[in-house]
Amino acid sequence: MPSECLDRPAAATTRIAPQSGVSFKLRAGDVLKVRDPCGEQVCDLFAFKDGDFTCSLSSGRSIDYAGKIYLSTGDVLYSNDSRRLFTIVADTVGRHDFLLTPCSQEMFEILYRCQGHHPSCLENLFNALSPHGVKAHQISNTFNIFMNVTVSAEGEVSVKPPLSRAGDSIELRAEMDLLCALTACSAEMSNNGTFKPIDYEIVRATVEV
Amino acid sequence: MPSECLDRPAAATTRIAPQSGVSFKLRAGDVLKVRDPCGEQVCDLFAFKDGDFTCSLSSGRSIDYAGKIYLSTGDVLYSNDSRRLFTIVADTVGRHDFLLTPCSQEMFEILYRCQGHHPSCLENLFNALSPHGVKAHQISNTFNIFMNVTVSAEGEVSVKPPLSRAGDSIELRAEMDLLCALTACSAEMSNNGTFKPIDYEIVRATVEV
Repeated sequence: MPSECLDRPAAATTRIAPQSGVSFKLRAGDVLKVRDPCGEQVCDLFAFKDGDFTCSLSSGRSIDYAGKIYLSTGDVLYSNDSRRLFTIVADTVGRHDFLLTPCSQEMFEILYRCQGHHPSCLENLFNALSPHGVKAHQISNTFNIFMNVTVSAEGEVSVKPPLSRAGDSIELRAEMDLLCALTACSAEMSNNGTFKPIDYEIVRATVEV
Repeated sequence: MPSECLDRPAAATTRIAPQSGVSFKLRAGDVLKVRDPCGEQVCDLFAFKDGDFTCSLSSGRSIDYAGKIYLSTGDVLYSNDSRRLFTIVADTVGRHDFLLTPCSQEMFEILYRCQGHHPSCLENLFNALSPHGVKAHQISNTFNIFMNVTVSAEGEVSVKPPLSRAGDSIELRAEMDLLCALTACSAEMSNNGTFKPIDYEIVRATVEV
């Protein structure tokens, strides 16, 4: 881990080890805070409506309704059936990718001629979500937090180093009860060549009495 | 139908009525030719591996592997599990969308405050595919043939009139046995304000004796 990484700030914060993933549930109103402790580290997010795998995160719906590919504070992440899953309520970076799928074994083989096993976000999302009954094919386009993908006027897509610096963060409020998964991304190209951890914290909604 | 529309050219060609959809199967090697007979008309394409709904068209995989958002001749449309579904073998337009989802009832309500039923590509894809056992949630991001969506340097997405003129076409070779659906799109904005038909033809692969 780079020496310039921030310490894990509080007991409420969980650190995702490099090239791994986690899953957890959010209740409507909970806020998920994702922090890049070292800088230039991508974190893939996927989510289902809790208890209903037919309702899941949709890049196409979200981009269509936002009218842009770079979602940030105030924008909504929608499901495939056009329901609100998250609202971004804070964002110190403003550059996240919603075009590309999570890195996978096949991606490393097709794009980078990788031979043998390579850790991947798809594998890590699946390993985190499969105890809940999720199948790999149900994990579609992820919201790739801190990933910096540009599109030229001719449509060329380029993966560039994340704009996030140590301590940068994004906060997403759950708009319904959700089953979520996060990774610390395993793709060399997406993370400027090094694999670092990701911190996250769940701020539970205040329960009205 | 605009008077400048081309006649249906041959017995082998099927005309999809405005604001409707069809489904059919392709065998590996078959070529699907989609023609815009009137100009400025979008046609949404979705496909599954024949007999396996867990393997379906993926915008994220296709964009990632092509390294661009505008796919054209020589590019491959991939599945969610990184298998080759189609290769584009001819294309007289070169501008098709792979960012947005098929228009849906909810899209017309969210983006255009539509009240009451509005015909949509999602409904038409579902109606065409449901006799094969497909559920609506299994239809994700479509390849939106002739749809002209631009992305600014800041990431703003704009839906513009299609670049296709009467007679323009695209040809896609099936790389495995597929269950496909096509529409003549129902969204005013995507088709420069009018709803027109779409022609398609299936050129069957020559069976080796």
